[in-house]
Amino acid sequence: MKRELLVSNVDREMKIALEKYEEPKDIRRVLSGMRPTGKLHLGNYFGALKTWVELQEKAESFFFIADWHAITTSYHDTSGLSENTVEMMADWLASGIDPERSTLFVQSWVKEHAELHLLLSMITPVKWLERNPTYKEMMENLKDRELATYGFLGYPVLQTADIVLYKADTVPVGIDQIPHIELSREITRRFNRFFGDIFPEPRPYLSEAPKLPGLDGRKMSKSYGNCIYLSDSEEEVNKKVMSMVTDPARVRKTDPGHPEVCSVFAYHKIFTPEERVKEIEESCRRGEIGCVQCKRELAKNLNNFLEPIRSKRAELLSKRDELIGIFREGSRRAKKVAEKTMEEVRRAMNFLEG
Amino acid sequence: MKRELLVSNVDREMKIALEKYEEPKDIRRVLSGMRPTGKLHLGNYFGALKTWVELQEKAESFFFIADWHAITTSYHDTSGLSENTVEMMADWLASGIDPERSTLFVQSWVKEHAELHLLLSMITPVKWLERNPTYKEMMENLKDRELATYGFLGYPVLQTADIVLYKADTVPVGIDQIPHIELSREITRRFNRFFGDIFPEPRPYLSEAPKLPGLDGRKMSKSYGNCIYLSDSEEEVNKKVMSMVTDPARVRKTDPGHPEVCSVFAYHKIFTPEERVKEIEESCRRGEIGCVQCKRELAKNLNNFLEPIRSKRAELLSKRDELIGIFREGSRRAKKVAEKTMEEVRRAMNFLEG
Ligand code: SF4
Ligand code: SF4
Repeated sequence: MKRELLVSNVDREMKIALEKYEEPKDIRRVLSGMRPTGKLHLGNYFGALKTWVELQEKAESFFFIADWHAITTSYHDTSGLSENTVEMMADWLASGIDPERSTLFVQSWVKEHAELHLLLSMITPVKWLERNPTYKEMMENLKDRELATYGFLGYPVLQTADIVLYKADTVPVGIDQIPHIELSREITRRFNRFFGDIFPEPRPYLSEAPKLPGLDGRKMSKSYGNCIYLSDSEEEVNKKVMSMVTDPARVRKTDPGHPEVCSVFAYHKIFTPEERVKEIEESCRRGEIGCVQCKRELAKNLNNFLEPIRSKRAELLSKRDELIGIFREGSRRAKKVAEKTMEEVRRAMNFLEG
Repeated sequence: MKRELLVSNVDREMKIALEKYEEPKDIRRVLSGMRPTGKLHLGNYFGALKTWVELQEKAESFFFIADWHAITTSYHDTSGLSENTVEMMADWLASGIDPERSTLFVQSWVKEHAELHLLLSMITPVKWLERNPTYKEMMENLKDRELATYGFLGYPVLQTADIVLYKADTVPVGIDQIPHIELSREITRRFNRFFGDIFPEPRPYLSEAPKLPGLDGRKMSKSYGNCIYLSDSEEEVNKKVMSMVTDPARVRKTDPGHPEVCSVFAYHKIFTPEERVKEIEESCRRGEIGCVQCKRELAKNLNNFLEPIRSKRAELLSKRDELIGIFREGSRRAKKVAEKTMEEVRRAMNFLEG
């Protein structure tokens, strides 16, 4: 129920947002981050990483592992935080995020995020944060998990700091993040009004990601246990594809199918050559191809897609220190930019120079 | 009305607090701070600085200029922040705070405060902060000033970070700060429960400061314009003392006075030798001393008290760079301690090491 309500809200927001923010023409500096909550799945890849890989060709890009954000909701158990951070590093690089083109860093290694967060917190009215839909929804749904912490309420303030610290003008986000970016824009305007025109107003960058359902047909999400991970082995992929839901009307191979309601077919549209997709569609409608065969074919194509990512990933993780070193170097670069912004901010706010 | 209500609340809290926190016997590490909102007055001196000067003899002491805290309530105008910070440095040293004994620093120069603030924010329930009496009172009284910012709500979280960052066990505070220290203790316990026994629970240290009213008999406060500043010149002190309210029953010199209701007399008890205080008391009751004469005598004694502070202060401010240098050096020392704590915290929370 709640989820449906949210989705329809999101759709409405989406329409408004897409009207409001046409594709930006002059992207100069891009920033985006991800919370290290576990290994990445295909949903993350198509929802974010693929866009990042494209954007890094077009503009100066900053991508960060949001480890501070990760604890906003799971502060009671942070035991996996370190390992998840390293896994995320591997997932990113294996997916084509290029440390030569992009500045890749870990949020908690650039303390300026915390400093700017604190300063922005002083000018952000509590009321703005309380009307944030994510906060409102969480408050209603998850009363028992004590999620209503001060840090959770202030999530959009930290996110604003993350963005403006690099004076990023463009933030690739999912549609559900639009209200947060709106809030970031408001906070930015308020800061500029008080202290001078220091930060550009960040714009969301909405990519039209292909719809990639989870194994059960719902949205792919770790909490539903319906994901295919970038790190899944060939066998795991085979098994998972075999377990995918198909057109429920098909009992026998000869029953005519409806590819438009079948998750397997949604995958074929991404991982299978176009002409072959057409053939599958027709064979399915005519009851000429069995789901098992159809799935085997998908599994093969999917494994072809995943294989280079998977092996690059394993290779990266086998040289853990080198991998971390790449993010250390990126964090140094990020810190330089951040420090420059903070000098400006401190001066504008009249802090005594240290 | 509100203020009276607050005072009576404070008195009740005071009683409870004094019963709960007897004078700590084993003070190891002291921490306290002040917001640089302007030059210090006699109320600040007797309410805090004098206690600090005593404490620095007994325990390792950290005193900091809380410039980040200063903007929680005056974010719309930070134009005086730098200058107020320097003035506060001079006020402290002139009052006997000794940089050889105490670690003196500026909060915003030790970024670890912001980092720990952020981490503590993740575990602090919003509800705890909303029931903070200072927040509730401000919300009721000052609706129009847009004070309800996220940073203002989180004031006690930053204060907790300030304290536990140095693992301070003792915090000299005014009675109105007791609810904040209580909150700090709660946050500390919660952190320790999640992540291990890292921080000692800070205890408040309540000094019985002598009652020093403002010129008009009310509490001495900058916002009432009834202060005598440590920096006031001899002439200013003379003029201010002459303007002080005395026993309203005395119209003529020969009217019998009531020293117990007279602010001038309250000052004599602090700045005039004991035997002479007794003589004044008797002469006043018998109507043998005029208020003008009585005030002249006070002005002289007060100027004797203030003169060394005043000239030391001027001397310090004439070597501004040296003065700031003392706090730079202190901040370096503070940072070392803070960095050590943060390493422990990051490890306990499982952040990937940078
Ligand atoms: S044949 Fe393929 S597309 Fe058709 S229902 Fe079965 S799995 Fe889906
Ligand atoms: S004589 Fe002194 S103590 Fe008595 S009322 Fe006047 S000022 Fe106050």
